[in-house]
Amino acid sequence: MINRGSRTVIIGVMGGSDVAQPIYELAFQLGAMIAEQGWALLNGGRDAGVMRASAEGAKSRNGLTIGVLPGGSRRGANPFIDIPIFTEMGAARNVINVLSSDVVVALPGGAGTISEIALALKSGKKVCLLKFDVHALFQSCCFPDQLYYAESLQDCMAWLQQHTDV
Amino acid sequence: MINRGSRTVIIGVMGGSDVAQPIYELAFQLGAMIAEQGWALLNGGRDAGVMRASAEGAKSRNGLTIGVLPGGSRRGANPFIDIPIFTEMGAARNVINVLSSDVVVALPGGAGTISEIALALKSGKKVCLLKFDVHALFQSCCFPDQLYYAESLQDCMAWLQQHTDV
Amino acid sequence: MINRGSRTVIIGVMGGSDVAQPIYELAFQLGAMIAEQGWALLNGGRDAGVMRASAEGAKSRNGLTIGVLPGGSRRGANPFIDIPIFTEMGAARNVINVLSSDVVVALPGGAGTISEIALALKSGKKVCLLKFDVHALFQSCCFPDQLYYAESLQDCMAWLQQHTDV
Amino acid sequence: MINRGSRTVIIGVMGGSDVAQPIYELAFQLGAMIAEQGWALLNGGRDAGVMRASAEGAKSRNGLTIGVLPGGSRRGANPFIDIPIFTEMGAARNVINVLSSDVVVALPGGAGTISEIALALKSGKKVCLLKFDVHALFQSCCFPDQLYYAESLQDCMAWLQQHTDV
Repeated sequence: MINRGSRTVIIGVMGGSDVAQPIYELAFQLGAMIAEQGWALLNGGRDAGVMRASAEGAKSRNGLTIGVLPGGSRRGANPFIDIPIFTEMGAARNVINVLSSDVVVALPGGAGTISEIALALKSGKKVCLLKFDVHALFQSCCFPDQLYYAESLQDCMAWLQQHTDV
Repeated sequence: MINRGSRTVIIGVMGGSDVAQPIYELAFQLGAMIAEQGWALLNGGRDAGVMRASAEGAKSRNGLTIGVLPGGSRRGANPFIDIPIFTEMGAARNVINVLSSDVVVALPGGAGTISEIALALKSGKKVCLLKFDVHALFQSCCFPDQLYYAESLQDCMAWLQQHTDV
Repeated sequence: MINRGSRTVIIGVMGGSDVAQPIYELAFQLGAMIAEQGWALLNGGRDAGVMRASAEGAKSRNGLTIGVLPGGSRRGANPFIDIPIFTEMGAARNVINVLSSDVVVALPGGAGTISEIALALKSGKKVCLLKFDVHALFQSCCFPDQLYYAESLQDCMAWLQQHTDV
Repeated sequence: MINRGSRTVIIGVMGGSDVAQPIYELAFQLGAMIAEQGWALLNGGRDAGVMRASAEGAKSRNGLTIGVLPGGSRRGANPFIDIPIFTEMGAARNVINVLSSDVVVALPGGAGTISEIALALKSGKKVCLLKFDVHALFQSCCFPDQLYYAESLQDCMAWLQQHTDV
């Protein structure tokens, strides 16, 4: 009998490549809690900021980690990525990040993170902003139903529980 | 003697595919004024909203129009595009829109337009927001020097004049 | 102590979406043997031909399967893909297929498969052609060291063993 | 009255970045003859081989030249490109090259050129091979109706005349 692959839930975690220590630790804890749920974690795969911290957290709980990289070679990937997807497509890989995630969590970041929130909303994905207060922008023009602002990790995890019955 | 192509200035015009009539007319006028300067106009090429209006305006003054399309065939392009670039890459073409523009003007739009502003800022481009008041968001987190908010078409054109000595 | 993700070897399997039954069965067996080695299998993820067969084979041995899809939603993926990567980029995803594979095996296919062989060789990857006799073309113009032609599955597997110490 | 952009025919010219002098000269002549027909020329835009030569030829007859570049900045473009489209997408831009051309001419080249022929055929485009004798490969597996082999520039131009009533 053939064992069909069970449907893996994939949580996308976006956020800055240069973040303060409390955000780095929050990303680590988020990654760990995602892995504890049995979910796979997907991020941008680079060896910096939220990408490194969330993958490191997921691996601390033996989670599966996927990194969609802007470059074409393993040098750019952080060591906590199990499945590196190399695109050599620069910022165009941001689209792949959000399309390949069942739901997206966005921590504080810069323009790259904002582009990923926008692209996720445009493609119909649900997005949880974790301590990244840009919801006023997006809520004013679009998408009130797709966007959630979480003040705490616990709040974010509860929201994820509700939105992963995919 | 070989006639080397003179360096064409390319102005990217971003904005919503579903906009109110005053914004449609503003986009038409912007396209016309860009063409009058001898600049080429680049947009997303689809047959809707700011993409159609700005190209129509540019062609009303015999300007050159370039459309970078999300799809792969001519059916999706508006009839005012001289040079359609077909990508079949969906939203990933937003990256090409901003990288291929010397400077970017963003009119009111939705998540796609916000993604283009973010991607433009991330790639180091200068962006003029024309009656699209999302500058508070972007200025709070990043890029005060790259972003300008224009209340009027005249203000926008004056800013473009200053930023096209490329 | 943090458990760093061990380095997973990823074998890319390319081939036609419409193939004769013997090739379908060969692709199934190849997928099964890749999984038995503990390697992950990566392909184009669609529910047809070599993509479906090789993933089905890998899952019959509990392997890990990754599919890089041309579309943006789960409907296009075959049920044997564990990790679907959605690109909405059409044929541009062929580049990602080969960049994300440590080595590539190409079974008989059409123009899409030939494009993947060419893109793999261009990016410096090693490619094993399994019963797909297009090596004359590629060897005449380029890349004799990167390309191998295997007449049998056993030959292909022996070659893979030699080229996966990455 | 609004002057709708007349439909510009776009001829894609593909070929190697490192070619012998006779091929460089052939590419120059091809570019010149394309421009004399009033057609626009599209190529990969880099400052090497067939990309440079064909653009230089087109500009010698005041043609319009479009270059779809793998990188993100003007440094990589050759000086004979009027409209550089920057993608920062590496080889994925090969897809855009062929999708944006009405018909494709392929001169001798390496794996990149072969990938473009394959991608063009896959997308349904007609391709003229000019002194690049890889037709045996493609004709054996696919697409006899889409592919033509021309021994001379005159033969190629006659074929283009027949296939540009788009």
